Amino acid sequence: MAPKLYGNVYSTATLRVVATLHEKGVEFEFAPLSFGPELKKESYLSLNPFGQVPAYVDGDLKLFESRAITKHIAFEHHGKGTELLYHDLKKMAPVSVWKEVEAHQYDPVATKLVFEQAVKPFIMKLEPDLAVVEENQKKLGQILDVYEARLSKSKYLGGDEFTLADLHHLPTLQYLQGTSTKEVFEARPHVSAWVKDILARPAWIKALELQKQA
Amino acid sequence: MAPKLYGNVYSTATLRVVATLHEKGVEFEFAPLSFGPELKKESYLSLNPFGQVPAYVDGDLKLFESRAITKHIAFEHHGKGTELLYHDLKKMAPVSVWKEVEAHQYDPVATKLVFEQAVKPFIMKLEPDLAVVEENQKKLGQILDVYEARLSKSKYLGGDEFTLADLHHLPTLQYLQGTSTKEVFEARPHVSAWVKDILARPAWIKALELQKQA
Repeated sequence: MAPKLYGNVYSTATLRVVATLHEKGVEFEFAPLSFGPELKKESYLSLNPFGQVPAYVDGDLKLFESRAITKHIAFEHHGKGTELLYHDLKKMAPVSVWKEVEAHQYDPVATKLVFEQAVKPFIMKLEPDLAVVEENQKKLGQILDVYEARLSKSKYLGGDEFTLADLHHLPTLQYLQGTSTKEVFEARPHVSAWVKDILARPAWIKALELQKQA
Repeated sequence: MAPKLYGNVYSTATLRVVATLHEKGVEFEFAPLSFGPELKKESYLSLNPFGQVPAYVDGDLKLFESRAITKHIAFEHHGKGTELLYHDLKKMAPVSVWKEVEAHQYDPVATKLVFEQAVKPFIMKLEPDLAVVEENQKKLGQILDVYEARLSKSKYLGGDEFTLADLHHLPTLQYLQGTSTKEVFEARPHVSAWVKDILARPAWIKALELQKQA
């Protein structure tokens, strides 16, 4: 039986898993959930006790937390589709470092910008807080200076090949390309080339098609 | 040559790596750094481009981000000391989930409480913001409700054995046991037993000895 992904097509965490499944060429069933009370029902809390999206069920395995799911899929389908992680320790070490950079440096700042510049105006019909936007664009710029130095030495964050360290950025990157924060990426040539390259991956374009069906 | 760990003995990220090295029984050299300008020198930025502690150098391998370092050490010294991670995919899956729970659910809240209740009064000589403390203790309680349910079913977060999913909590847990937030842990019996159990591990007690030498 195909694995089942419970998620929301606008959720960055959900899209991270969908992109991974497409990169590996894994067939799956998608169970769309709306934000709100549906996530707090007992039946869903048994899959994700924090009442968040996504959750992933494959046979008797129940997983939550998007980055734990992507990692599991990458290793489970080793040798199929894109190699998103390595078994070799030396090759894996920089990938692990840059996966953590995404999670602990980039994502907190990017998520605040996505909330202010995409979620508030387009979903909540609220004005963005421009002081929060400015503060976080400045922080993002400092983080992307480190990315620029890294990407001037290797094509992708974890090395010469596209891995989960890059992929985990895709959903927030996509949202921010439709906002003024786009300029923070474009001001840095290696970052800008990397953004264009990874957003154009067929697996990512296929992941976004889920939104059109919603 | 023994690996070298650059860090600060009061930094939770540094202590996470020290505890891992002791659990694995790995000899290492410790290079103590003070917070502030020392971390922004070019020589240190070549080890950690974000100018944060820790950084880890083992031969030609240079790593930063504490959770990437602990993972590397756990796999590099597989079969030595405590098995903190697994190669087996099914056994590893829940460990990965709970490592992400620590990083994305528990740590942001715990870190805010450590800042208000330990860093501000004892290091910065400032009053804690009681509204921030109250708000985050409430959030922590909701997170620990999920931990309580999990720990009523398995002795440790990732399963029946102590792994990095537990270990990553140690430094913030230690700081919070000296504050009013201790009660949030003690109100939940399985969480309380788990906290006592993991804080008493010899590798953790040895890690704290670094502070006495500082």
